[in-house]
Amino acid sequence: MKKVKVGIAGLGRLGKVHAHNIAYKIPNAELTAACSIVSDELEYAKKELGVTDVYTDYKEMLAMADIDAVVIVTTSGEHCWQIAAALDAGKHVFSDKPLGVTVEECKLAEGAVERHPESVFFLGFMRRFDPSYAYAKKKIEDGVIGTPYMVKAAGIDPEALVEGAIKFAATSGGIFIDMAIHDIDLMRWFLGSDPVEVHAMGATFKHPEFAEVGDDETGVAMYKCGNGALGIVHVGRTAAHGYHVETEIIGTEGSLRISPVPEKNLCMVYDKNGVVTECVGGFPERFAEAYQLEMQEFIDCVESGKKPEITVYDGTKSTQIGFATTEAWKTGNIVKIEY
Amino acid sequence: MKKVKVGIAGLGRLGKVHAHNIAYKIPNAELTAACSIVSDELEYAKKELGVTDVYTDYKEMLAMADIDAVVIVTTSGEHCWQIAAALDAGKHVFSDKPLGVTVEECKLAEGAVERHPESVFFLGFMRRFDPSYAYAKKKIEDGVIGTPYMVKAAGIDPEALVEGAIKFAATSGGIFIDMAIHDIDLMRWFLGSDPVEVHAMGATFKHPEFAEVGDDETGVAMYKCGNGALGIVHVGRTAAHGYHVETEIIGTEGSLRISPVPEKNLCMVYDKNGVVTECVGGFPERFAEAYQLEMQEFIDCVESGKKPEITVYDGTKSTQIGFATTEAWKTGNIVKIEY
Amino acid sequence: MKKVKVGIAGLGRLGKVHAHNIAYKIPNAELTAACSIVSDELEYAKKELGVTDVYTDYKEMLAMADIDAVVIVTTSGEHCWQIAAALDAGKHVFSDKPLGVTVEECKLAEGAVERHPESVFFLGFMRRFDPSYAYAKKKIEDGVIGTPYMVKAAGIDPEALVEGAIKFAATSGGIFIDMAIHDIDLMRWFLGSDPVEVHAMGATFKHPEFAEVGDDETGVAMYKCGNGALGIVHVGRTAAHGYHVETEIIGTEGSLRISPVPEKNLCMVYDKNGVVTECVGGFPERFAEAYQLEMQEFIDCVESGKKPEITVYDGTKSTQIGFATTEAWKTGNIVKIEY
Amino acid sequence: MKKVKVGIAGLGRLGKVHAHNIAYKIPNAELTAACSIVSDELEYAKKELGVTDVYTDYKEMLAMADIDAVVIVTTSGEHCWQIAAALDAGKHVFSDKPLGVTVEECKLAEGAVERHPESVFFLGFMRRFDPSYAYAKKKIEDGVIGTPYMVKAAGIDPEALVEGAIKFAATSGGIFIDMAIHDIDLMRWFLGSDPVEVHAMGATFKHPEFAEVGDDETGVAMYKCGNGALGIVHVGRTAAHGYHVETEIIGTEGSLRISPVPEKNLCMVYDKNGVVTECVGGFPERFAEAYQLEMQEFIDCVESGKKPEITVYDGTKSTQIGFATTEAWKTGNIVKIEY
Repeated sequence: MKKVKVGIAGLGRLGKVHAHNIAYKIPNAELTAACSIVSDELEYAKKELGVTDVYTDYKEMLAMADIDAVVIVTTSGEHCWQIAAALDAGKHVFSDKPLGVTVEECKLAEGAVERHPESVFFLGFMRRFDPSYAYAKKKIEDGVIGTPYMVKAAGIDPEALVEGAIKFAATSGGIFIDMAIHDIDLMRWFLGSDPVEVHAMGATFKHPEFAEVGDDETGVAMYKCGNGALGIVHVGRTAAHGYHVETEIIGTEGSLRISPVPEKNLCMVYDKNGVVTECVGGFPERFAEAYQLEMQEFIDCVESGKKPEITVYDGTKSTQIGFATTEAWKTGNIVKIEY
Repeated sequence: MKKVKVGIAGLGRLGKVHAHNIAYKIPNAELTAACSIVSDELEYAKKELGVTDVYTDYKEMLAMADIDAVVIVTTSGEHCWQIAAALDAGKHVFSDKPLGVTVEECKLAEGAVERHPESVFFLGFMRRFDPSYAYAKKKIEDGVIGTPYMVKAAGIDPEALVEGAIKFAATSGGIFIDMAIHDIDLMRWFLGSDPVEVHAMGATFKHPEFAEVGDDETGVAMYKCGNGALGIVHVGRTAAHGYHVETEIIGTEGSLRISPVPEKNLCMVYDKNGVVTECVGGFPERFAEAYQLEMQEFIDCVESGKKPEITVYDGTKSTQIGFATTEAWKTGNIVKIEY
Repeated sequence: MKKVKVGIAGLGRLGKVHAHNIAYKIPNAELTAACSIVSDELEYAKKELGVTDVYTDYKEMLAMADIDAVVIVTTSGEHCWQIAAALDAGKHVFSDKPLGVTVEECKLAEGAVERHPESVFFLGFMRRFDPSYAYAKKKIEDGVIGTPYMVKAAGIDPEALVEGAIKFAATSGGIFIDMAIHDIDLMRWFLGSDPVEVHAMGATFKHPEFAEVGDDETGVAMYKCGNGALGIVHVGRTAAHGYHVETEIIGTEGSLRISPVPEKNLCMVYDKNGVVTECVGGFPERFAEAYQLEMQEFIDCVESGKKPEITVYDGTKSTQIGFATTEAWKTGNIVKIEY
Repeated sequence: MKKVKVGIAGLGRLGKVHAHNIAYKIPNAELTAACSIVSDELEYAKKELGVTDVYTDYKEMLAMADIDAVVIVTTSGEHCWQIAAALDAGKHVFSDKPLGVTVEECKLAEGAVERHPESVFFLGFMRRFDPSYAYAKKKIEDGVIGTPYMVKAAGIDPEALVEGAIKFAATSGGIFIDMAIHDIDLMRWFLGSDPVEVHAMGATFKHPEFAEVGDDETGVAMYKCGNGALGIVHVGRTAAHGYHVETEIIGTEGSLRISPVPEKNLCMVYDKNGVVTECVGGFPERFAEAYQLEMQEFIDCVESGKKPEITVYDGTKSTQIGFATTEAWKTGNIVKIEY
């Protein structure tokens, strides 16, 4: 069995997750090269992943390494040019979300993808691969809820991790850019229509540090889509109980609800507090399986020539919507979204 | 034990619920008079409730009947003048929600209440008396969730009853006036602050009859309150699974969630579909206990001279907010709310 | 509307519940007499229930009071002779469970019931009237789970109330007599067959006071019924989370499960512990509605001449099964049950 | 990184799960040999797993293959001699449960393990590695429920798969041998004490084919342990809703409950039936992660020299308890268990 040879760029928290999956959990892939500007991360690649072909320069990896595909998990601002460079070097590309931090960048990535129709480009909206979300999509396709016309989504980081968010608040692009991209993608995916109008509000009651730099600790946006469907996206950073990702999809014949209780596992505790369900602590725990399944799908696409369902245009649109939402939040106006 | 003597005005669906509670479930009340323009309803009062002192004219009941208090369950447009007339006749008054159908009417009722500080005026926001909602309020007062800063509410009537809603769509005042008043009241109650700004959207995907008369089958509104807190109210008419009333209150230290699964009772069915929880079929089933508890509170206020927590101003405000929401929905604009 | 006139015997904790329901919650009943050997209880009857016709002697109440029916809520050892006396005095009778504390006593009650076929005899197995249990029975009758062949029941008192149980441990008859009667009745009711064989075990790990007087704080019994169906009854006294009554009924086509989470109400708390459902604190809270509904049914039977579904023989059988279970537990043997 | 070289014996349904995990999901293992008497299975090993070193004779694999460890997933009757042969050949051994089909066989395996204290022997009680069960064990060790004194377990195969069970009913050893071993192991593990006495019953209401060959479709056993703790194990073959594995562990300070609703994933469907949670379809789905985690633990033990928590004696004891349970069920007697 021939394996797809992969080089990874970026070995931070999420990069390590991807690298470990490629190295050990994807039968038809092997991790043969790694690139990072952080020397500890390259040490990690050698010791923990057995990758000896390491680089500090991304372009050098593209030029020198024996790889079929590149997995990009660098900081968001680097994604687009790295995507273009890899495609132009004849590599298949997986890039983590977001596609880019400006719409202009995204258009550059689009151009590169269009120049290389023979290559696979895969954008890391891993939630679509989570078994519960994939099951919801399947149910919708099976007609179980009729025509979906409303999505209500919540994505709230745990209070336990808020210090990190406070530290980066001034440079994160604001709560909607930082936190709403996955929910925006899910909304589009489930509704089958793009939002054309948004209004958004924010609030900060617990950590004034967010407000001090012009951010908010909670945001809520309301969307109207081209086909008339509605969307509500609620993002936040201070869930006491853990990492709260919840989605409701409402259709003409029924609705679906994913994890109103973001349970850690199937064990409940009955004690003097009552009946207690502990909750997941963060996205690596909640979406561990999704990260593995999306990478498997990427590798399978490379191997088989199959095209991914997610396209580069999904990436551009989610970025556009994120900026429109941010404008609505900042100005207090209703913002029209054009693509 | 002296009982509070009550005359009821209106014996429709909800009127019968109240009348039955007064007659049989409130120890310190007795139902001694009834008024209706529907002769069948007066027959019902005689046969089922043992009330022999019946009237077709409201003012005549006020003048003639041996009553301490009036319970008004007539059509919404009659509430305010009937409130004023009863207070001016020296009676204590319970009025079902909404207070009135225009703000002007509400102001008339306010004037009457202010003229009679010695009388009890009680507005039927029964959800506040539901054990689950009352428990949530108690938890908030106990500080369990810190400062509440966001309410997310849903109130969706069952598809099984949609024909009635279609029939009255042209005259209901629109979905927000018709359906959102309770959720608006709960939002204000839980947040302890009034909304100052609203944006709203609607959608109709299943029953075009609503859109044909300018209504919608689903509506969603987003509020910002004076203290910066946020609110989302989602109303609809087509829940496949039953009567769906759900509320989430989010605070700085935790959150509360009331009935994401609007269970009919504590029995689950494990069958070939999976594990199934049947749901309540409508508001009389869901809030049976709340209707009884609010009436008990009204009677206790009359008997003890205690003042109700809910005031006439709560009624005016919820009506004002309902109209502002309707304006936002109809115009597509963000609407400022002034009181 | 003519009301059924009721005299109550016994006004302890549960007696007060019944008395309050008769006086204030059952439209076609009135509480006209009360009997107790505790003077405070008679004071309560006068002040809280407005009953002026009070007695310290049960037979005197039967002879003198203007009553159609007697509700017996005295200590268990008094039930049977009081049942017989009331029936012989021409009264309809409601007796709380258990029917009697010996099978001989139960037979005396049976004789009295048989002597008075014109009178209503009603035994207070209130769980059958709880909306969730009644719904389960209806589902079974509708064929939803096919033929029921196994019942698994748990009835565990809260640790918060264990002191009372410790105090009466020496005289309670043991944990199965004291706690399993309701579960035994439900098992028979749901399975439609009587147990013919039982084995039982007990354990005491938390409160050695139970073991010191020959009782146990936890008991579990396994039954085989005449038709081959199986039953498991688990009783205890030390649930940390509250009052835990749970029942599972398994049939050939599905199963039913009542309250694996004995929720207090529909509100959940999301806090640093996770997602928490508080639980009911005791039987008066859990079965408040059931107590009212069974009394309504008794009064309706008296008024209409309808015969109750529960018979005196159900009472004798549950007592016989309780004793057989106790024998199995005490001896460590498998015990055959004959009726 | 040096990898542990593994040869697998048996590539049936579960064998394929283990083989796939070793080949692709365990970083520090590689699958280098395979043995099966079924030629299709060897083809599978070559094509799907890339294993070219294949055998039809187990002893030949032990003698010839370049392997450090053997994973035994053959039919139960082969386990013990294969364990002994592998250990005597200097290999580390993982054997699927049960250890053996007679106590005599188990003793042979014990002897081999004792002869080779330097080798790792690992018994496949994978449920201990399921995240929910492992979490429950951790909670107990942390003292969250005080002293555990009762386990209630249910393990019910789906009706959808009953045809297979009917086919093998005559030779399966009966329902307790066939189905209760995992629950027995969990009971011992959670209680920290071994059962010394058992009574058991069975029933067949849906598929008479079981009764015709002396088996039952449902069985329930009640255990008393050496320390006085209690256990209930309920096994069956006809769950309408899916694969039902549920466990409750009750302690002096609280209790734990694992999966009263054996949910397939985190998505619920709200439709005209109510709120529906679909359930897992079988053990490979329910325990997919547990199978991977137990194999990881085995390989880590081999690599590090660490001893597994599960021992060969756990295997013997669960077999002994299974036989005692079967005797109790067949004879209708209470059976003492001696080790």
